[in-house]
Formats: sequence, C-alpha cells, structure tokens
Amino acid sequence: MEHGALTPGSLLGNEIELAARLGLSRPTVRQAIQSLVDKGLLVRRRGVGTQVVHSQVKRPLELSSLYDDLESAGQRPATKVIVNTVVPASAEVAAALGVAEDSDVHRIERLRLAHGEPMAYLCNFLPPALLDLDTAQLEATGLYRLMRAAGITLHSARQTIGARAATATEAERLAEEEGAPLLTMQRVTFDDTGRAVEYGTHMYRPSRYSFEFQLLVRS
Amino acid sequence: MEHGALTPGSLLGNEIELAARLGLSRPTVRQAIQSLVDKGLLVRRRGVGTQVVHSQVKRPLELSSLYDDLESAGQRPATKVIVNTVVPASAEVAAALGVAEDSDVHRIERLRLAHGEPMAYLCNFLPPALLDLDTAQLEATGLYRLMRAAGITLHSARQTIGARAATATEAERLAEEEGAPLLTMQRVTFDDTGRAVEYGTHMYRPSRYSFEFQLLVRS
Repeated sequence: MEHGALTPGSLLGNEIELAARLGLSRPTVRQAIQSLVDKGLLVRRRGVGTQVVHSQVKRPLELSSLYDDLESAGQRPATKVIVNTVVPASAEVAAALGVAEDSDVHRIERLRLAHGEPMAYLCNFLPPALLDLDTAQLEATGLYRLMRAAGITLHSARQTIGARAATATEAERLAEEEGAPLLTMQRVTFDDTGRAVEYGTHMYRPSRYSFEFQLLVRS
Repeated sequence: MEHGALTPGSLLGNEIELAARLGLSRPTVRQAIQSLVDKGLLVRRRGVGTQVVHSQVKRPLELSSLYDDLESAGQRPATKVIVNTVVPASAEVAAALGVAEDSDVHRIERLRLAHGEPMAYLCNFLPPALLDLDTAQLEATGLYRLMRAAGITLHSARQTIGARAATATEAERLAEEEGAPLLTMQRVTFDDTGRAVEYGTHMYRPSRYSFEFQLLVRS
C-alpha cells in the first residue's frame, strides 16, 4: 500500500468492503489496517473514518471546514439552518468582531449532520454587508466555501477548545441527555486585511467528533 | 503599552495590582485590558491568566508543556505523582508507542495542580530505558523538561482533543461530580529520530483549562 493508489486524505472503505475488494479475510484486513495506523500511514478520525495521512508527522494544524472535512471523507454532511437573522451585537460579539456594541450583525445557527445523525450545533456571527447569507446556500454547502466564493480570503483564526455540560435545549438539538458532556470550540477568523470575518461558538457531540492534529516542535 | 516593557508571553497582574501600580481606577484598568484584548495584543487564557500575545495572529500551534505554561504564567503549578511503575503494554499502548504488546513500559499518573487546586490528571506511558523517572523529579518539574534534560529532542506530536463524562474515580481525583464533563487530550510525541517517546491520555477540568491557539490558512 506504500506504493499503491491511495492518495493523502483519501478514505479507506470499511473492513467488509476492503476484504471483499482485496479477496482477503476480515481479520487479515483489520490487522493490516492496524499496522498501517501504527506506522502512522493511516489515521482514524472519530466522525470521519480511517484516512490516509496527508504527509507523515509533518502536518501543522490548518484552518479547516467541518463541512469540507466530512464531505471529502464521504460522510454525507447535511446542514439544517435553524436561525438566519440580523441582531444587535452583544458586548462579547462586538469585541470578537471588532464592531460597535449594538450594531447590526448577522447571526446564523446551523445543525450539522453526518449520515443523517446530528454531529454539531454551529452558531456564527458575521459583520454586516460581508456577504449574502442565503438559507438555501447555507444548507447546500459550508460557510467558509460561501465566504471564499464571495471573494473573502481567509487568513488566520484564533481558536479555543473546551468542554461543558449540555443545557436542556442543546441536548434536545443534538440528541443528547441534559448535562451530557459537549466539546466546544470558539473561533474568530480573520481575512488577509486583518478584519474579523466570523465569530463562531460551536458545540460537538464528543461521541461523534474530536479534534485531531499534528504539531511540530519549533527549534 | 504598545511601546512599553511587556514582552511577549509575560503575564499581566490582576486588575487590583495593575490599578495600584499605574495609579488608575479599577474600571479604567479593566476597560484598558478589554481594549487590548479586542485589539489582539492581549489574550485571556483560562487557567493561565491574561498574557501579552507572542506575535500578533501569527503563531502556529506549538508543542507545549502544561507545567511550563503554568509556571511562566505565575500559576504556581504543583504535581502529585499517583502512580510510577512498570507495566506490560496493552494493545493500545503498544500501538501508540510502537513496541510489542505485553513488553515493559513505564506508566506514570500525575495530578497537576495550579494554586493548590486540581487542574488535570495526566496518564503517560513511556518506552523502557528512555530515561530515569524519579518521583521526586516528576514532582519538581514537567515531563518534557525531564526528557530534554535526558538528551531527548522532541520533534512532533499527534494530538486528539475530545470530551467525556467523568467516572467516579476521575471525579474524585479532580474534585468534580461523577458524570461532569471533562476535556480530554491524547498525545503521542515523537523525537527527531521518529521514535515515539511518550503516549499520554490526559483529563482536564473544563472550568479551569481550555486549549487556545492560533492557526494560519495555508495558501
């Protein structure tokens, strides 16, 4: 497989498919996959699947889109837009986006599903007049892709990852129990002019999603 | 402050200290800090404090030591070694470290405190004969610092961040309730020869710690 046709990022089928395709027994396939995971040639990502690694132990963290990650992994992402409106910026949102408190900002809330199962609840705030936020488009693709299509060049982001207990509302949205642990991510994304173009507060079901990345020691 | 004496990474005192030092009112100091946070010149890190940013929106994620982070932030880290022993490698540990199943590996479990309060429970497995793991030394400093002192050059790491509910034992160790959300991190660290030198499975109290980092979009 080291010299085979699998390109970085491509998703391995499941064991049954692979066994049938390669004419091998399922335990043999399982053992082969484990040995490639051990060697660092494959990586298992919860919620995504077993993937060929992009480049061995050399990949710094990148700004990625959950939608794109799921789609390229064949996880059939879907989005349900729950809220798409304009609201006055709270102090927190104003500080994150660098706009005046109480000024108009876009607010969108989306439920992200994979294979029809809720995976994450995504709340985003965007400065006004940045791009059209059409509900149908938001349900058809990812936010970053819409931003790029609107001519925005994403440059960098500041991210915080934490955990907390689900409120009753959050639990219902994500098909979890109230008080169940959720993985949380807050992110402010900047474009190439240094302007904040998006502030997101996202909640993920930890049984369906985790953050995985590689990092390098700087000498 | 843009041209002042605060160097990147240095920790701001609390509002009361700062107000006294600068001869300003506390609300004025609070407002000044918020405006510097908004500008991206300061960053608030839960469990660490308010710090001067290292370089503006340009810092990729680095392999860092919780002990060093806490110490440089004046958070008075302390470590209590709970387990320091040699065990046969489980399948999971053997796969992570690239050693034979059931072969001897070091196992250490440490409770990490900040200002006397539990912050994290750290479980690490290390290959045998890599370095002396002296309990007194483990309580006096961080594991990465001991590894560097033993001549190991840390090169890269593969990290997974997730969340889950605390078991009764974990809850007791971390002064949480059973079922409370915990932030989890698994990490395999590699040296400059590509050898796995450490496999850690860590649990953090989300009220006391979160992962914060900046990332750049690669063009």
